[in-house]
Amino acid sequence: MTATSHPLTSQNWPIAVCMHGFAPVAADGTRLHDATAETWDGVFGQIERLGFTAVEIADSHIRPSELDPARRAELKQIATAHGVELISVHVQRQSVIEPGKGEQNLAYAHRAIDAAAELGMSVFSTGLHQPFSEAQRKALWFWTAPGPVDPDDAETRALAVRRLRELGEHAASVGLPMALEMYEDTYLGTADSAVRLIEEIGLDNVGLNPDIGNLVRLHRPIEDWREMHEKTLPYANYWHVKNYIRDEAGDGSWQTAVPTSMELGLINYRAMVARAVEIGFRGPFLMEQYGGDSLGVCATNRDYLRTLLPDVAEA
Amino acid sequence: MTATSHPLTSQNWPIAVCMHGFAPVAADGTRLHDATAETWDGVFGQIERLGFTAVEIADSHIRPSELDPARRAELKQIATAHGVELISVHVQRQSVIEPGKGEQNLAYAHRAIDAAAELGMSVFSTGLHQPFSEAQRKALWFWTAPGPVDPDDAETRALAVRRLRELGEHAASVGLPMALEMYEDTYLGTADSAVRLIEEIGLDNVGLNPDIGNLVRLHRPIEDWREMHEKTLPYANYWHVKNYIRDEAGDGSWQTAVPTSMELGLINYRAMVARAVEIGFRGPFLMEQYGGDSLGVCATNRDYLRTLLPDVAEA
Amino acid sequence: MTATSHPLTSQNWPIAVCMHGFAPVAADGTRLHDATAETWDGVFGQIERLGFTAVEIADSHIRPSELDPARRAELKQIATAHGVELISVHVQRQSVIEPGKGEQNLAYAHRAIDAAAELGMSVFSTGLHQPFSEAQRKALWFWTAPGPVDPDDAETRALAVRRLRELGEHAASVGLPMALEMYEDTYLGTADSAVRLIEEIGLDNVGLNPDIGNLVRLHRPIEDWREMHEKTLPYANYWHVKNYIRDEAGDGSWQTAVPTSMELGLINYRAMVARAVEIGFRGPFLMEQYGGDSLGVCATNRDYLRTLLPDVAEA
Repeated sequence: MTATSHPLTSQNWPIAVCMHGFAPVAADGTRLHDATAETWDGVFGQIERLGFTAVEIADSHIRPSELDPARRAELKQIATAHGVELISVHVQRQSVIEPGKGEQNLAYAHRAIDAAAELGMSVFSTGLHQPFSEAQRKALWFWTAPGPVDPDDAETRALAVRRLRELGEHAASVGLPMALEMYEDTYLGTADSAVRLIEEIGLDNVGLNPDIGNLVRLHRPIEDWREMHEKTLPYANYWHVKNYIRDEAGDGSWQTAVPTSMELGLINYRAMVARAVEIGFRGPFLMEQYGGDSLGVCATNRDYLRTLLPDVAEA
Repeated sequence: MTATSHPLTSQNWPIAVCMHGFAPVAADGTRLHDATAETWDGVFGQIERLGFTAVEIADSHIRPSELDPARRAELKQIATAHGVELISVHVQRQSVIEPGKGEQNLAYAHRAIDAAAELGMSVFSTGLHQPFSEAQRKALWFWTAPGPVDPDDAETRALAVRRLRELGEHAASVGLPMALEMYEDTYLGTADSAVRLIEEIGLDNVGLNPDIGNLVRLHRPIEDWREMHEKTLPYANYWHVKNYIRDEAGDGSWQTAVPTSMELGLINYRAMVARAVEIGFRGPFLMEQYGGDSLGVCATNRDYLRTLLPDVAEA
Repeated sequence: MTATSHPLTSQNWPIAVCMHGFAPVAADGTRLHDATAETWDGVFGQIERLGFTAVEIADSHIRPSELDPARRAELKQIATAHGVELISVHVQRQSVIEPGKGEQNLAYAHRAIDAAAELGMSVFSTGLHQPFSEAQRKALWFWTAPGPVDPDDAETRALAVRRLRELGEHAASVGLPMALEMYEDTYLGTADSAVRLIEEIGLDNVGLNPDIGNLVRLHRPIEDWREMHEKTLPYANYWHVKNYIRDEAGDGSWQTAVPTSMELGLINYRAMVARAVEIGFRGPFLMEQYGGDSLGVCATNRDYLRTLLPDVAEA
């Protein structure tokens, strides 16, 4: 993109909606992945009515690479009919170092990249988080229960770097940026480790998704959100944004956090978005919200986010 | 109502405001029940300015049946002058099985039904909750302290069924639906028990007020809010809606919940309202909010709720 | 002001924004106090874009009395160019009874009053709170950790009264009201003590800033917010407004509170603002918000507050 052709503005900056507001499996047991074109049309119709023009395909809901070519074309066609761009596919809880499943997940991620390219997406998005533990599945909010932890082990870390680099090279070969989501207890779980991982991978098209909302909601001591952003925003190429209110006992005996709107939560997105744009962030945003009316809050957040973006951003 | 005469739309669907935002007793000790026409006019003027066209008369504030006929007519006339419909009377904390007061409460409820009919109301609303305990009166939020508990006793339950059926028959005879509010520690305190109670009563005009906000705010383990709605919405004929944020310790050692807007809370009303309408709910909504600016949040919630309703609902 | 000249209306009532949304020190270490005119212009530009026409100068950010006259004039000129009134200076954490620093703080407060008058401000605002303790500096929210406590000692209290009276007389001599902010663990920390302090000072131009948001956020048992307002509003001449959600364990074992919007929090500002205006409050409001997007929430709150104000207030 050149500076003169399509400058980003507060009104055209890509802002996608997540799919948390849609059921991955219908009451009759049909997966959204296998649903009829009519059901998909309903989903995209709702996205359109909420005023969204882009969506992130979560692979918990639809796996583009696992659709046959005709169905993949159908997905694209339905989205387009509703004016909705398929901005990214988010391959989640399919870690390339998941014990016993790493190679299988790696192969799947390669297929996901090809499908993303075929669908004309803008970003390939993934991370190192693994499937929920039993305790996480039972919890009101999964982040309050312990989940899998990446080992403090140089060899495993090196394997993660190698496989993610392999995916990054593949993404680059089809013209896609690759964004790695920050997530607790993975090599992307602290600002320092996440930045180091990007540097170890060492590819221009591989950056961070500084989803620090994932970290400020934890029921444990957390890093300062300003410092985490300051360290990670220079590496950001895609951004899951969401916010939480948070309180902590003065003596550290408890922490509480629940989802709220971007404006009302702990993270000052007015300042963080300004800072990101100042240092060159030009990637798409993804509106994410857990619990309650995810779609409604995402739409509210989108309108709010547009007021934070610059009238025109230099390319 | 026939499908062609007055179809419900997102704009005309009855949405009433609760009276929590008004003081039941003035600073000078006068009960709102006994207040001058001028005071009542102020209340309805405020309701009108907030854009509401319907109110639920809470009997904590005004007891229509205990007004003399002239005052009752005055109430109706003042409401009408402000374009406000008296959509229901909510007889609360007057359980027909309250120990020592059951018969008295039953007689009062009968009078309340007659008054509701005389005032042209759309619903008679009540439940099985009893007066606050001393601990509840002292608590910041009454639901954090223990209150009365309906006995696990078939005879008392049968008495509740018998008396509620008697009220339901009375309501039917004057053309009114009767709605029973879900409330913890009563026979209407779990989804299963509430549904069973409606079936035991066995009258077409008696349904549930699936006020599941009452349950998700409790400082104890709770049922899943989706499952509770799925079970109870088929029986709903009136709906108190309100929302809470909620957090729980991962180890179950504490729960916290506080009132917030319908959009920002735990319950996904976008999905629940769609589901209710899908399976035939056509009853009125009542906006309820505890704490803070109840009236303001109710108005905010009403505007939000209208965006969730279908353009036109088949009758 | 006479009743006929400039009656206060919901649209012209002075509502200022706090400076919490601006960094007191830039990334390069420059204090905002010492920043270039260009930086100041950026701050006031942002205030203007948010739709604010007044600001409270927090002395944590800029100390008008410690600027040389040319810089002070520059501050005023930049503010005016953006249509922003410098409504008050808030001298904070500079208690006139801070051990070992009382006289120095007193002298500084005198200079601050002169600077406020020179800048044409409407209120001189201060209080008795002292610098943060180490624990407060480390806490996520400073109010969850213990801070300095005014001694239960008649002599120290008398000294506070004497020095505040001296400041009040100075303020009166330059035509300024002086507002004392309610703050926990100071002589302004309970409704009764705060009211008594104002009466002990005994000057017409010295009143309260009933910032009861400071008190409802504490992790300890609190006074009833309605009663606190009822006692203190008659003495109010300036009002920091902000709101918090709050929950308490039924057994008193914990309390939690976090910032939220004025509409969604514990305090019913609809009722409190109406009550204040009813008993004669005509002072400016200051929008305050900690955490998250302070500026954005302040703007949201301002728009909300205007809906609570009377169309026209009798002077």
